[in-house]
Amino acid sequence: MVARLAAEFLGTFILVFGGVGTALFAANFPDPESNTLGVGFLGVALAFGLTVVVGAYSMGPISGGHFNPAVTLGVAAAGRFAWRDTGGYIVAQLVGGLVAASALAAILAGGDGALAAARDGGFASNGYGELSPGGYGIGSAILVETILTAVFLFVIIGATAKIAAPAMAGLAIGLTLTLIHLISIPVTNTSVNPARSLASAVYGGGEWLGQVWLFLVFPVLGALVAGFAYKGLFGATAAEG
Amino acid sequence: MVARLAAEFLGTFILVFGGVGTALFAANFPDPESNTLGVGFLGVALAFGLTVVVGAYSMGPISGGHFNPAVTLGVAAAGRFAWRDTGGYIVAQLVGGLVAASALAAILAGGDGALAAARDGGFASNGYGELSPGGYGIGSAILVETILTAVFLFVIIGATAKIAAPAMAGLAIGLTLTLIHLISIPVTNTSVNPARSLASAVYGGGEWLGQVWLFLVFPVLGALVAGFAYKGLFGATAAEG
Amino acid sequence: MVARLAAEFLGTFILVFGGVGTALFAANFPDPESNTLGVGFLGVALAFGLTVVVGAYSMGPISGGHFNPAVTLGVAAAGRFAWRDTGGYIVAQLVGGLVAASALAAILAGGDGALAAARDGGFASNGYGELSPGGYGIGSAILVETILTAVFLFVIIGATAKIAAPAMAGLAIGLTLTLIHLISIPVTNTSVNPARSLASAVYGGGEWLGQVWLFLVFPVLGALVAGFAYKGLFGATAAEG
Amino acid sequence: MVARLAAEFLGTFILVFGGVGTALFAANFPDPESNTLGVGFLGVALAFGLTVVVGAYSMGPISGGHFNPAVTLGVAAAGRFAWRDTGGYIVAQLVGGLVAASALAAILAGGDGALAAARDGGFASNGYGELSPGGYGIGSAILVETILTAVFLFVIIGATAKIAAPAMAGLAIGLTLTLIHLISIPVTNTSVNPARSLASAVYGGGEWLGQVWLFLVFPVLGALVAGFAYKGLFGATAAEG
Repeated sequence: MVARLAAEFLGTFILVFGGVGTALFAANFPDPESNTLGVGFLGVALAFGLTVVVGAYSMGPISGGHFNPAVTLGVAAAGRFAWRDTGGYIVAQLVGGLVAASALAAILAGGDGALAAARDGGFASNGYGELSPGGYGIGSAILVETILTAVFLFVIIGATAKIAAPAMAGLAIGLTLTLIHLISIPVTNTSVNPARSLASAVYGGGEWLGQVWLFLVFPVLGALVAGFAYKGLFGATAAEG
Repeated sequence: MVARLAAEFLGTFILVFGGVGTALFAANFPDPESNTLGVGFLGVALAFGLTVVVGAYSMGPISGGHFNPAVTLGVAAAGRFAWRDTGGYIVAQLVGGLVAASALAAILAGGDGALAAARDGGFASNGYGELSPGGYGIGSAILVETILTAVFLFVIIGATAKIAAPAMAGLAIGLTLTLIHLISIPVTNTSVNPARSLASAVYGGGEWLGQVWLFLVFPVLGALVAGFAYKGLFGATAAEG
Repeated sequence: MVARLAAEFLGTFILVFGGVGTALFAANFPDPESNTLGVGFLGVALAFGLTVVVGAYSMGPISGGHFNPAVTLGVAAAGRFAWRDTGGYIVAQLVGGLVAASALAAILAGGDGALAAARDGGFASNGYGELSPGGYGIGSAILVETILTAVFLFVIIGATAKIAAPAMAGLAIGLTLTLIHLISIPVTNTSVNPARSLASAVYGGGEWLGQVWLFLVFPVLGALVAGFAYKGLFGATAAEG
Repeated sequence: MVARLAAEFLGTFILVFGGVGTALFAANFPDPESNTLGVGFLGVALAFGLTVVVGAYSMGPISGGHFNPAVTLGVAAAGRFAWRDTGGYIVAQLVGGLVAASALAAILAGGDGALAAARDGGFASNGYGELSPGGYGIGSAILVETILTAVFLFVIIGATAKIAAPAMAGLAIGLTLTLIHLISIPVTNTSVNPARSLASAVYGGGEWLGQVWLFLVFPVLGALVAGFAYKGLFGATAAEG
């Protein structure tokens, strides 16, 4: 169990360090003297997805590669993971995310005003209403987080079913997270992961921390709905092979 | 059969929610204060392809992963799918696409004027002539949709042949849809999928709905030609192994 | 043999239609009213690579998936392909490329002045000196085309060796072509493929056609050097497993 | 052993020619007459990752596919590689990188002032303080290089463990290098590889060469820490299967 929790810690560290780090360091890197651009939303979407690809193939064989409390609860709902192990996994994930955010803050502290600027901008936190990148309200945020986390879990559970191609699951699941970010960064800055949201919000502080509850509740709701629904709809078929 | 139709519904929901959603929310997201850009045509092309990758690895083992009436008819023409099952699949796909477009509309309704702007712009519908992004006429639209849907079907049928590498098929097929969008967004905003075209056009309305027939007819034509041609040219060779 | 030649025709058609098509339709698509950008060099690089990925997984099991006269000659030099079959393959590739360029011209003819503009700009031809996108001279063009085609062949021959992972070869080879374009579009607009160069130059005409010899000679030279070198350096090791 | 060293030479040549070459030729390619953009940081990040993907699938079966002295030392620390072979590998990697940088310089010499401009800009060297793209100090550089090389080694060692999916390791490892560049180009221009840093610094000269020590020391430190830590934390579990 120590190895499994260490794997979840490391995988969630990579997810937050890589995804939030790309958003903070590289998304809108300014270079007025050339026409080099920052990596933009496309780069951030790719980065978040790649964190899961690399975590899945390196740490996945040890822990299953959740790196996300909503995933842990959703796969438990689908009958693929023991409910009694969910607590330990979730703690390891939350700690991994917070340590990653602290490492990012330490690196930003060595840039010229970079840490203050990152914190003023919310430290890549998730938000709705005035804190939504595109000004979308709370209803839109609830819909998009619930639907997209449900999609994420359908893919995770489906791609790791007995009848699926197991070697490809990590790639398919990571690319799902890229797709989810391509769609929804303008709406909520994309959570679908309470560990990622909490890690950012702790450094964003104030208003951002005040909105973090939505990104704890609705990703978990979407994951549970998908877990139970997959089991009901496809459970019998997917166990073949 | 219920599980298979549910899988086609979900996969087509993901395709339209992800591809059309990225086009509507993120393609030209304006951020005048930084030099962050929207994800552009490249991001939309990637998103459409990824919807098929994730659908193929999650729902593909259950339904075969068509998510597109032209694909269902093309693989039937190639002798890989029962003609009598095509009707149910197509209905599930059309409904999945429409439900996804309605979910996108509900989310846009929570943005400041975002739903009206999306509908005024055609809700990412396909078009030709004045409704083509690059002003290409009806002949160009017919050529590009027919050729590219034929290419799509050649890949789908070839990559799932007995002599091919089955675990990689979902990735190759999804990346084909990315390629197709890279080429043809400027010409027709890219259909090759009647379910995707109808879902957008219903919310685009008016002129857009008046042009949707082309994107129902020619993708199906290209798919049927490719299905029969593959069977004739490569059928014997591809069944080996 | 008919099936194999048809597969090479189709694969090279897809390569030119997809790669050159993305360059002509989408690379610098102008949209002054929004900040949507064309797909740029990055999109063109991705498109060329994806044409090989999709060709490899769909047509590769039938013909081996060369789609390029330099590849056919290089794998023959490495002892992996019969010299007596090279002629037929090369003819099928050249014809496939020319038919694709003609289809692109037909589609451009339906755009407002798009065909004339594409031909004035060289129809995405390769070039050096004044026709190099970045103004690189003939020596740079010779170096970059020879080195990069040699790299391409090392990957093709290495990734399909007995000791390699055969299911992944198509992906690795296609992504190599993306890498090659990322490096060298500014130098020569990237050939490494005489069939692609000839197809563009026929429609570019004039000066462009006058430079096409370099893109017939040096990709073939690089491929032959790599083929013979791989056989000498790694042939014994690579045949194990 | 000759074949293995030749494979490491070639793989590191591809890494530097591809990654540094994309940075020098294509990253901020200026084209004021159209709105085509250079490939940017995103293109450079993709290029570096693809060099490893293509090297891993082509040369990996022969040499293991390190292409990086830090990787060679880290996998030795994890007990996966013989310490006595590290010296030969590292020499082959350093020479491969330097030959690649020389080839890039020869190609740049054929562009109009391109070689002088590339050398004035540091030849894509790594740097901190005034030589950091985003102005990050030495502490930030040490942190980011150490952490990211450790992440790189965790993925390399984890994805090639007995319990992992071996065919996918090359893709996962290459995409890790893309992720690492997405995060950290603004901080240090991204090393995590002493062979890549030395190859650039030799042509960057002066100040750049004076900072190269950091990019020799800390990637190696991060790699060794990760190698020993993986062995302690996951060694027993990972050897199963």
